[in-house]
Amino acid sequence: RRGEMAKSTQLIDNEVFRAYATYTAIVLIKMMLMSLITAYFRITRKAFVNPEDTASFGKGDSAKKYLRTDADVERVRRGHLNDLENIVPFVGIGLLYALSGPELSTALLHFRIFTGARILHTFAYLIPLPQPGRGLSWAVGYSVTFSMAYKVLKTALLL
Amino acid sequence: RRGEMAKSTQLIDNEVFRAYATYTAIVLIKMMLMSLITAYFRITRKAFVNPEDTASFGKGDSAKKYLRTDADVERVRRGHLNDLENIVPFVGIGLLYALSGPELSTALLHFRIFTGARILHTFAYLIPLPQPGRGLSWAVGYSVTFSMAYKVLKTALLL
Amino acid sequence: RRGEMAKSTQLIDNEVFRAYATYTAIVLIKMMLMSLITAYFRITRKAFVNPEDTASFGKGDSAKKYLRTDADVERVRRGHLNDLENIVPFVGIGLLYALSGPELSTALLHFRIFTGARILHTFAYLIPLPQPGRGLSWAVGYSVTFSMAYKVLKTALLL
Repeated sequence: RRGEMAKSTQLIDNEVFRAYATYTAIVLIKMMLMSLITAYFRITRKAFVNPEDTASFGKGDSAKKYLRTDADVERVRRGHLNDLENIVPFVGIGLLYALSGPELSTALLHFRIFTGARILHTFAYLIPLPQPGRGLSWAVGYSVTFSMAYKVLKTALLL
Repeated sequence: RRGEMAKSTQLIDNEVFRAYATYTAIVLIKMMLMSLITAYFRITRKAFVNPEDTASFGKGDSAKKYLRTDADVERVRRGHLNDLENIVPFVGIGLLYALSGPELSTALLHFRIFTGARILHTFAYLIPLPQPGRGLSWAVGYSVTFSMAYKVLKTALLL
Repeated sequence: RRGEMAKSTQLIDNEVFRAYATYTAIVLIKMMLMSLITAYFRITRKAFVNPEDTASFGKGDSAKKYLRTDADVERVRRGHLNDLENIVPFVGIGLLYALSGPELSTALLHFRIFTGARILHTFAYLIPLPQPGRGLSWAVGYSVTFSMAYKVLKTALLL
């Protein structure tokens, strides 16, 4: 039992891996919050997509009119999808990067910039900020993931 | 060769990690099945989105009429996207959680409830069940992932 | 410090894990390129979805006409979503598979076929190739992930 425990916690004892775990948990929680924001806008804007979701508004046409798209709902959904497209590569490549033996300070720099960029991206999308606000925050996060992928391929390449 | 093998299997020898591997494989396979269900509805409802997919139905207008959206197809696709939005955080945070040294029984509780909730969510979406069936199954899975994220941040926090 | 370094790099010293890291980085970079291709088509086709993205084209109706969908843009976006639906399970199950102690040659076979199939899938989607080009490349990648999931469940099963 003891030996197993020791094994299971050795990765989490590594500082770079702890930093990876921290920032991965933060960006994934941030991504999950998009679901709550979508739900908030769906309810306040009364804009649903599934008939069973409008059943509490009555039957027939009185409920049907709430089966519609709303600009704010669609905006949050686009932000959520953009998170999936960018946070999935960060989580996958970031894990390999954390295991490729980078300096703690370099790793922290990557994780912090990515996390900051994605939080900014969400605000830029939802407020919305004028471009190139959203574009730049997207590009910064994207570049960080590419930089980590380069380190992974340089360290691990086995084709 | 032996030494390497031993190294590569040590994580998989850990019981919490084995439980994580089992339930992650199950929920990811469940998510992958959504592709097959989408294909099934696209073919039986004759509702396609790419012109090259309707070529076997002939040319011109006889094929074009099958380029359309279908309520059942769109429902499966929404279920699939909801899986991506919720199973991706589970897989990412669950890995870190499994490495953070939880009790096996606590970890199994998290993994089992999440997996059950997501399977229920799929049935609630596809049948469909009246609300709050789908909403509750979503919320249960969501809460399990948050609970694991809390444990990860408590164990690993390094900002 | 030394000890930690050794710990952090042991997984990356394992050949199967290095192969996993290499192909995972490649398919995730491939997926990320879909964002650039989407941006390229949005700009050359002048087809945007957010009002703030068309502000540089002037105000009022002169900018509003660029808020439209374009067949090429939508095609790339469908390819991107299909990547998410298929590459996410590969990355998650592939990691568990790499840790389940497969032979290097078997693992390389899985990773190479999956990566080749997904690159073919992208070309089949974007050119587009006549069916069943895209369908087959999708099915090959899908089957590889299932094969790895089977090995993971056979090795790790703990329900």
